[in-house]
Amino acid sequence: MNIVDRLYEKVEEVGVVCLGLDTNPSYIPEEYINKFEDLSEAIFNFNKEIIDATTDVVACYKVQIAYYEALGLNGLKAYSRTVKYLKERNLISIGDIKRGDIADTAKMYAKAHLEGDFEVDFVTLSPYMGLDSIEPYMPYLESGEKGAFALVRTSNKGAQDLQYMNCEDGDKVFYKVGEKLQNLGERAMAKCGYSNLGAVIGCTHVDEGKILRERLGKTFFLIPGYGAQGGKAEDVAIYLKNGNGGVVNSSRKILLAYKGKDDDMNFAKYARLEAISMRDEIRKACGR
Amino acid sequence: MNIVDRLYEKVEEVGVVCLGLDTNPSYIPEEYINKFEDLSEAIFNFNKEIIDATTDVVACYKVQIAYYEALGLNGLKAYSRTVKYLKERNLISIGDIKRGDIADTAKMYAKAHLEGDFEVDFVTLSPYMGLDSIEPYMPYLESGEKGAFALVRTSNKGAQDLQYMNCEDGDKVFYKVGEKLQNLGERAMAKCGYSNLGAVIGCTHVDEGKILRERLGKTFFLIPGYGAQGGKAEDVAIYLKNGNGGVVNSSRKILLAYKGKDDDMNFAKYARLEAISMRDEIRKACGR
Repeated sequence: MNIVDRLYEKVEEVGVVCLGLDTNPSYIPEEYINKFEDLSEAIFNFNKEIIDATTDVVACYKVQIAYYEALGLNGLKAYSRTVKYLKERNLISIGDIKRGDIADTAKMYAKAHLEGDFEVDFVTLSPYMGLDSIEPYMPYLESGEKGAFALVRTSNKGAQDLQYMNCEDGDKVFYKVGEKLQNLGERAMAKCGYSNLGAVIGCTHVDEGKILRERLGKTFFLIPGYGAQGGKAEDVAIYLKNGNGGVVNSSRKILLAYKGKDDDMNFAKYARLEAISMRDEIRKACGR
Repeated sequence: MNIVDRLYEKVEEVGVVCLGLDTNPSYIPEEYINKFEDLSEAIFNFNKEIIDATTDVVACYKVQIAYYEALGLNGLKAYSRTVKYLKERNLISIGDIKRGDIADTAKMYAKAHLEGDFEVDFVTLSPYMGLDSIEPYMPYLESGEKGAFALVRTSNKGAQDLQYMNCEDGDKVFYKVGEKLQNLGERAMAKCGYSNLGAVIGCTHVDEGKILRERLGKTFFLIPGYGAQGGKAEDVAIYLKNGNGGVVNSSRKILLAYKGKDDDMNFAKYARLEAISMRDEIRKACGR
């Protein structure tokens, strides 16, 4: 089945939560780390326990590769094991890699992250170099087997430096970029009405949220910024269509839900509870 | 010594060539690959021979990580060994990673590529998310120990999709981005008059080249697109100031210079000759 259709159905079934495995070693209880021979082993097992405890309450898992790259080859071993474990369990994975390059180089990145050691179902991409930096991923997207989310509008302060600039016709840069990507994505439409080429859309601006949802009607959204980064359920609901058409990422708030509770070693239990609570808050805000 | 001052002096001494180690396994003679136990070993040794043959004729080495990522963990092992070897030999390295993310995630990327297994002297960055995606690298740049080149204007066709768009005041997006980066870079000026925050500037448009060199007078350029990608010495000269203020990358044309010559196993010799010929062409075009 097409991967976007699978994600769409999963959202219908279990809700919109995308669990972010941005596993900074400092997030892992020290007592837990000490159980393992090396840090790479501890990180993978921490992720595995979180995954095992949440498969029926989250739509997908987003693994932020920067946290693993920061630990060098050993960190990337933990990344590879994590995405392979997700595949083994038939769970949907997003490699948050934000790569952006052209021609042969982009083909290499596509190969790196849609095949082999680092294979995921979706990657995130950066469109600064233009549509030909997305093109090398299109064969994977058109086959229906893989998907991608390109950066369109983020909610960090620096987004004003480029994304929020006005073009000569008064339209903002990110709307233009979003529409160009949506046009490209027409070549890879899934049955559910969304393209295999999705967009990363930060979730803190209400008015723009409505316009974005309307103008990018065929684009599935990956929405970061929930929880620790300040996004609220009511804001998020605006970027969804009747509670679907996007997934909402939370990382730290879920991974660190165990802090200040009974026992640090119960981190997976508290991750599950936090994911459920987030799912229910957003469901309620969407009137479902 | 400040890394940009070191690069500036090196350019004075040996010319502007940046040798791109975009080592696609298909570029390596089969006979050479067969000498080694595995591909990772062959790639590292191919790079090492090219490096050893060119230390006195090129200013620096740019290692395109995508080619290594595409081979998974084993490929990244070859990447790590290559950048470590450059450091060992006191040669200047650029990690062509084009990462772009914010806050804690960007800090992780900075740590990944300016320390540890993948440590290089310079990284390339993508500015789509804005200046706060560059900020986490600034402490390294301000210390003078490390440098970065942010994407500003590339010469691929897709650059028109975003970089070449007109802003409401008629200025192009890439000029705005370039100037914002230059302002940020003021915090990390080297003695030679350039900032440790440089820019990636594609080299195929003559008029814009002149304007860019003028408007970004304090910005050191990394100029790709020479050789296999169509850039000529006269074009490149426009982006330099009296033959300095930038380095010019060539990858395939140097790595594959051995093709059709006497013996494929002499790849390092022909790489050297090609680098010398490129250096001399550009020197001449710069009137030096």
